[in-house]
Amino acid sequence: MTNVTITAAKGFLAAGVHCGIKESGRNDLGLIVCPNGAVAAAVFTTNKIISAAVEVSRKHIKSPRIYAVVVNSGCANTCTGKIGIENAIAMCKETASLVARCSSLGLRVTRHEPLNVLVASTGIIGHQLPMKKIKAGIAKAAGNLSSSASAGLDFAKAIMTTDTKTKQTVRRLTIDDWRLPIENRKLKIENCVVTIAGVVKGAGMIAPNMATTLCFITTDVAISKPLLARALKDAIGNSLNKLTVDGHQSTNDTAIILASGLAGNRPIVSQCPRYKRFAAALADLCDDLARQMALDAEGATRMFKVVVKGAATKADAAKAARAAANYPLVKCAVHGGDPNWGRIICAVGSAGVRLNPGKLSCKIGAITVFRNGAPVKFDEKKASSIIFQLQHTITVDLGAGKISDFCYGCDLSAEYVRVNAEYRT
Amino acid sequence: MTNVTITAAKGFLAAGVHCGIKESGRNDLGLIVCPNGAVAAAVFTTNKIISAAVEVSRKHIKSPRIYAVVVNSGCANTCTGKIGIENAIAMCKETASLVARCSSLGLRVTRHEPLNVLVASTGIIGHQLPMKKIKAGIAKAAGNLSSSASAGLDFAKAIMTTDTKTKQTVRRLTIDDWRLPIENRKLKIENCVVTIAGVVKGAGMIAPNMATTLCFITTDVAISKPLLARALKDAIGNSLNKLTVDGHQSTNDTAIILASGLAGNRPIVSQCPRYKRFAAALADLCDDLARQMALDAEGATRMFKVVVKGAATKADAAKAARAAANYPLVKCAVHGGDPNWGRIICAVGSAGVRLNPGKLSCKIGAITVFRNGAPVKFDEKKASSIIFQLQHTITVDLGAGKISDFCYGCDLSAEYVRVNAEYRT
Repeated sequence: MTNVTITAAKGFLAAGVHCGIKESGRNDLGLIVCPNGAVAAAVFTTNKIISAAVEVSRKHIKSPRIYAVVVNSGCANTCTGKIGIENAIAMCKETASLVARCSSLGLRVTRHEPLNVLVASTGIIGHQLPMKKIKAGIAKAAGNLSSSASAGLDFAKAIMTTDTKTKQTVRRLTIDDWRLPIENRKLKIENCVVTIAGVVKGAGMIAPNMATTLCFITTDVAISKPLLARALKDAIGNSLNKLTVDGHQSTNDTAIILASGLAGNRPIVSQCPRYKRFAAALADLCDDLARQMALDAEGATRMFKVVVKGAATKADAAKAARAAANYPLVKCAVHGGDPNWGRIICAVGSAGVRLNPGKLSCKIGAITVFRNGAPVKFDEKKASSIIFQLQHTITVDLGAGKISDFCYGCDLSAEYVRVNAEYRT
Repeated sequence: MTNVTITAAKGFLAAGVHCGIKESGRNDLGLIVCPNGAVAAAVFTTNKIISAAVEVSRKHIKSPRIYAVVVNSGCANTCTGKIGIENAIAMCKETASLVARCSSLGLRVTRHEPLNVLVASTGIIGHQLPMKKIKAGIAKAAGNLSSSASAGLDFAKAIMTTDTKTKQTVRRLTIDDWRLPIENRKLKIENCVVTIAGVVKGAGMIAPNMATTLCFITTDVAISKPLLARALKDAIGNSLNKLTVDGHQSTNDTAIILASGLAGNRPIVSQCPRYKRFAAALADLCDDLARQMALDAEGATRMFKVVVKGAATKADAAKAARAAANYPLVKCAVHGGDPNWGRIICAVGSAGVRLNPGKLSCKIGAITVFRNGAPVKFDEKKASSIIFQLQHTITVDLGAGKISDFCYGCDLSAEYVRVNAEYRT
C-alpha cells in the first residue's frame, strides 16, 4: 500500500504515542523529525489570545533549519501564563535531547532553548500541561521514530481531538531539471519526483484568518525559505482559510511546512515555472485537506462550497461567501436537504457588502432558484437531492461587479451540539 | 386578571385570526387599530435585502399619525419583487377600507396608498403572499376588533412563527403634571398614569443592527414624534439590539411604537424629567421583552448576559460581548452547564478588539475563573450550578480601558437544529 502519511516525503521520521493526557487511552503525543534538518515555514492564528506553543514556535520558526516538531493533543497550553511558556520550551528541550540521544541526529543535548525545534498543542484551554507525562511520552515517541507509513499514521492519530478520522493526503509531482552530470559535462534533462504529504486535525473552532487548526506538511523539495513561506501562505489562504465550521479561529491554529531538500531537484530559488508547479501541487494538497476537514467537522454529515460572483471587490466576495457558509440557518437547511435559498439571500444581505438587489441571483448546484431579485420556479425535489450529496456548490451573484471568491462550509447537526456540550464535562 | 397585552394602553383595539397562510391552523394575521390616530416611530432592519413590508412601512412611518398596523406571519414577503410591493400596499389599503367600514374610525376607503397604515410580515422568504386569504383575514380581523385582553392575546399569537409562547409585557408609570384646572385657576399637581405595552415575536435569525424581529409597542402617553422616536431607538439599542440568537438579522426586522396620547398627560415635547421617566420605563419594557425572546429562542433552554468591562471604546465592548454571546462553542458549553471559560476567552480574543492579555479576567456569576491572564482555581460544581440557572451573567474584563457594554445570548441545543432543519420541508 502506498504511504499516504507525512513519512511519504524523503527525509522524515515520525511517531505517535499515548502519554496519558487523554483519558481515553488514545494517542496524544507526536513527533516529526528531520535528521538532516529542514527549511521550514508556518502560519499561525491571528487570535489575540494565543497558546504558549504558538508564542514559542513563532520565535523558533525563524531558525534557518528545523530538526523536529513536537505536538500534543488534549491540552491547548493556552491562558497558562509564564508556566505555559516554560512548559512549551521544555517540550522543545526534551525533544532535542531525547531525539539526539536515541537517534544520533543533528540535535544536541542543550541547556539553552533549542530554537530548531517547533512545538504545537491542541485541546482544552486554561489547563497546565502534565509535564511528567509529556516528558515520558517524548522519550517513548523518540524510541519509536520511523519512516514507515504506520509511524506516520500514529502521528496523525496523536494530533486528533474531536476528529472522528485521520485526515491525510499526498501529492507527487515531477520537476524537470537541467543537470550537468560530472562524467560527460553535457547538459541533460533529468526528471525528479517531489513528494508533498500533509496531515491536519480539526473539527470545531474553525474559521481562521491566517491558518487553521493544526496542519503539518512535509516535502522533500529543495527550495528557499522565503519561497516555501510564500507557497504555504498562498495555499493555506485558498484552502484551510476558506473553511468555516463555527465561525471562530482557535488560539492554537498552526500550519507548518518542512522541506528536507532530499528529492534531488535543483533548489528552487525564484518564482520560475518549477516554483509554480510546486505551489500548485501544494495548493491542491491543502484544498484536499480542507475538504476532508469540512466533512469531518464536528457533527457534519456533508459539506458545501459557496461561490460568490459579481462582487465589487475581493473582500466583498470573501465576506459574503463566508457569511452564507457561516449562517446557522443555511447550515441547518443543508442538514435538512432543504433548498431554502431565502436564508442564503438573507445572510448575504446582512454581510455588509455592496450588492444590487435587482440583479441578485442564486443557484443550488446548476439549478437557478432566484434571478435578478425575484424567485424562479424550480424543481424542489431535484434541488433537495443536490443538497443531499456529500458535496455541493451554492452560487450567489451579487450583481455589483466582476470579482469572485468562495468559502467551504458544512451542515449543522444535533451532533455538533452533543459533541460540544459534552466535550469537557 | 390584569391586561398585559397591547390593548392595555388606552386608545387601542386589536385582533388576531387564522386566515390560512399557516397550515397548522394557528393565527397568522393580526391588526392593531388606533381609532383616534397615534404618533408613531419605528426602527427597521439594516439588512440590504428587505421585505416589501419594510419598504412600504419605512415610507408610511413618516405620516404624522398612524391609524392601523396590519401584520401577517407564515410568509415574509421578501425577495418578491414588484408584486411583493403591490401586495404590501394592498394589505394597507384593505385594512384602511375594512377598518373604516367595520368600525367607522378615522380611516377612509381610498383608491390611493393609505400612508397612515403600517404593514409587517414574517415567515419564509421568497414566496408571494396568498392575497385572497389575506384579504378575507383582514375582513375577519376587522370584525373582531376589541380593546379586550383576549383580543390583544389573539394578536400576540398571530405574529408567532417558531415561537413556543407569546411574549408580552406591560409597564405603568405615574407622571406628575402641573395642571391649571379651569374652575379655580390655581396650579396643582395631578398624577397621570401612563401605560406602555409591548409584544414581540422572534426565535431565530436574531442579531440585528437596528431592530430585531417584529416588535409592537402601544402607549397612551402624549409625546412629540421626534421624542418618541428617540426613546424607541435608545430602548431598542439597549435591549433587542443586544440580543443574539444566531448572529444574523432578518430581512423583516421591525419595531413600531404607537402613542395614542390618551393618558391625559401634558404632551412631552422636550427632554424634561418626564421624558426621562417615560424613556426609562420604555427601556425597561424592551429589556423584559429581549429577555423573554432569549428564553424562547429556537431550542433555547436558558439565557445568559455577557458583560464586557475594561474596553478602550464602546464599540470594542459591544463587539467583544457579541462575539462571546454568539460563539457556538460558548452556547454549547452553557447548554451543557460547563464552566468552559477558555471558549469565552477564545471568542473575545478573536473579536478583533483591543485587549491586554496580561490583565484579561473572566467571571461566571460572582466566581472568578480567570484573572490577569492566568487560570484561577475555582469550585467547578458551583460554577456549573450558576450556568444551569435560567439566567446568568458572564463578565469579561479586557484590561484595556474603562468602557463597558453587554449582550444577551442563549444556549445552543439540538432542538435548534431540529427546528431549523425541518422548518420548511
